Amino acid sequence: MKTAESVAAGPPEDLCPHYREAITLLGKRWTGLILRVLAGRPSRFGEIAASVDGLSDRMLSARLRELEAAGLVQRIVHDEVPVRVEYRLSEMGADLAPILDGLQRWAERWDMAAAPTP
Amino acid sequence: MKTAESVAAGPPEDLCPHYREAITLLGKRWTGLILRVLAGRPSRFGEIAASVDGLSDRMLSARLRELEAAGLVQRIVHDEVPVRVEYRLSEMGADLAPILDGLQRWAERWDMAAAPTP
Repeated sequence: MKTAESVAAGPPEDLCPHYREAITLLGKRWTGLILRVLAGRPSRFGEIAASVDGLSDRMLSARLRELEAAGLVQRIVHDEVPVRVEYRLSEMGADLAPILDGLQRWAERWDMAAAPTP
Repeated sequence: MKTAESVAAGPPEDLCPHYREAITLLGKRWTGLILRVLAGRPSRFGEIAASVDGLSDRMLSARLRELEAAGLVQRIVHDEVPVRVEYRLSEMGADLAPILDGLQRWAERWDMAAAPTP
């Protein structure tokens, strides 16, 4: 791993750290699915959990924190009684939604699950 | 991991195995960069290696085999003396190129490398 060195040496398109960071984030289990739920509408924690079958509360909590830290998701606390908390895509997250849709459509078009998983 | 069960139980959009397979493939180190080189033009092994700084021959060989197995890349043997071998995107791979470009542009637009890597 000589990332910093390589970035300095090569032309900009050789090793784009932005791209790599993005694909690393999106490649994590559940992340793409959570983003797709939020692209549909702002949602409460329990609504997201109910929309993604098999996703535990603990994992959803961890993923939402990552997405908040990366700036894709905003946690909105509504000043009501009882307090209502919603998660929604930030402008950055909303900007990614059509790309994820494109990836999804591509994967379906080419029946992408055919490869055997060792 | 209850993937098969979950797929059967939930609505289709909850757990799309196509999407997951795609993001798993694309999330592998070097894969996105190799695809971007080949989106530019069909290339010989040595040309790809020279275009991606820091990528070893062994790793490039492994990634090309994966991409061939997944149907994104074709290995073309030109009947010449000496034999010339080129790699190029299949129709499926070429169909993905604009989506990867979109992801790249999104990552640059939002300065995606800002998050600290633990």
